[in-house]
Amino acid sequence: MARHIFRCPLRWADMDAFGHVNNVAFLRYLEEARIDFMFRLAPGEGSASFTGGSVVARHEIDYLRPLVHRHEPVTIETWVTGLAAASMTLGYEVKDAEVLYARASTVVVPYNLAHQRPRRITAEERAFLEEYLDGAVAA
Amino acid sequence: MARHIFRCPLRWADMDAFGHVNNVAFLRYLEEARIDFMFRLAPGEGSASFTGGSVVARHEIDYLRPLVHRHEPVTIETWVTGLAAASMTLGYEVKDAEVLYARASTVVVPYNLAHQRPRRITAEERAFLEEYLDGAVAA
Amino acid sequence: MARHIFRCPLRWADMDAFGHVNNVAFLRYLEEARIDFMFRLAPGEGSASFTGGSVVARHEIDYLRPLVHRHEPVTIETWVTGLAAASMTLGYEVKDAEVLYARASTVVVPYNLAHQRPRRITAEERAFLEEYLDGAVAA
Amino acid sequence: MARHIFRCPLRWADMDAFGHVNNVAFLRYLEEARIDFMFRLAPGEGSASFTGGSVVARHEIDYLRPLVHRHEPVTIETWVTGLAAASMTLGYEVKDAEVLYARASTVVVPYNLAHQRPRRITAEERAFLEEYLDGAVAA
Repeated sequence: MARHIFRCPLRWADMDAFGHVNNVAFLRYLEEARIDFMFRLAPGEGSASFTGGSVVARHEIDYLRPLVHRHEPVTIETWVTGLAAASMTLGYEVKDAEVLYARASTVVVPYNLAHQRPRRITAEERAFLEEYLDGAVAA
Repeated sequence: MARHIFRCPLRWADMDAFGHVNNVAFLRYLEEARIDFMFRLAPGEGSASFTGGSVVARHEIDYLRPLVHRHEPVTIETWVTGLAAASMTLGYEVKDAEVLYARASTVVVPYNLAHQRPRRITAEERAFLEEYLDGAVAA
Repeated sequence: MARHIFRCPLRWADMDAFGHVNNVAFLRYLEEARIDFMFRLAPGEGSASFTGGSVVARHEIDYLRPLVHRHEPVTIETWVTGLAAASMTLGYEVKDAEVLYARASTVVVPYNLAHQRPRRITAEERAFLEEYLDGAVAA
Repeated sequence: MARHIFRCPLRWADMDAFGHVNNVAFLRYLEEARIDFMFRLAPGEGSASFTGGSVVARHEIDYLRPLVHRHEPVTIETWVTGLAAASMTLGYEVKDAEVLYARASTVVVPYNLAHQRPRRITAEERAFLEEYLDGAVAA
């Protein structure tokens, strides 16, 4: 069971007028981790099709500690917590060596942009995703 | 039991390369509705203190229909689904007359920025929030 | 000689950690004014083609006064300061009744997305744009 | 005469519905380069004061080639094209090994956030900035 590790750079403007990274920016960080996992890594390991489109069906996120802009990236660990015929659920932790800033999960639906409709996960994609499958969400 | 109605303008750049309003932009729309509810409306009805700071502790959001940029705002209905000593839960629907685009909820913690720590909801705030309290989430 | 008036709503998150609307957000406001001028208004007055694509070739912007989030929109006046065969220059003022926050100009090139290349301004577009033509930039 | 080199990561959502990095995102990239130059590098080389605030007074930017999202950062070269008593002008090139995507310049005014007003550049800051001074803008 592997976890995908993405080092996500912050931008100064991710902070809001309260001087913390705004809660919405965290969802952008999850997108960056997902893009890296599904668009960059997946094809390289045998699956080219997620770049054809995918849709977010649901997010859940718990904010645990405030994050302030710094020059070092935060680490986002991503893994697969669920696999169905036409959707997958990803779990994430946003953290660095000492602090867990947020824990989240996203339901992603592969989407055929040309036909504008959801599609099933292929056998090739499933084989890739199963390497990251860990039903147990971190406590 | 009242619901807060916010007409949220879209921006063209809320769309991503797939030609839909990006999932992260919806969280920005919820923030705008919340700011209008907690910063603009609340003080006018007797509570000035939320402008002193608040922190998002949790979001849940279900995306139901794709949204494409248009010149008319979307409607965001906001109400209170839970009230505790030092937090409240807001429910939302993002919609227009015919379509429900998303359903969401947010746990908000009032925050004392000067002391950098959470604080309890005041009696005055509670009286304001109770007018919007409806424990039942829309089906 | 007409000017296009756009009432641009601010978002709370347009402010940065210094508590002012971030300089980059002003460029987003100009885009919203331009979209309203070129995508919404232009077709309604006889020109449907800008929605097929356009590219920004240049921006200049002078920031004159700091802007803080408020619930009322800012006004963006837009007009045409130059018209060439395959480009136009727009002038803008970002302001409200008492304050001029910024003055800017943008060179826009009509673009054929299908062929991925610039195209000339049509006679129909030119007739529309000439109504807003005022070579003299406001002092 | 040195140039400051910043490797700026793109985000997938920097692209707009036309499938290119949106023109406004380039200004965000310039901000990231400036933050790195003025907040991270400057203090380490003897000047701690820019973190106390600075204001953008003017931008100029020419877009030369379209940029599409990729996993490799773009390079932003930054240098000082002008130094006055209470302002400096920065020049930039946004590029990679083969392509020059944009050329820009920004007038920055050091700002005392506590007193909410501009301030003069200190001798220490000037010494730092002069190492990057090159009045000639790249042709």
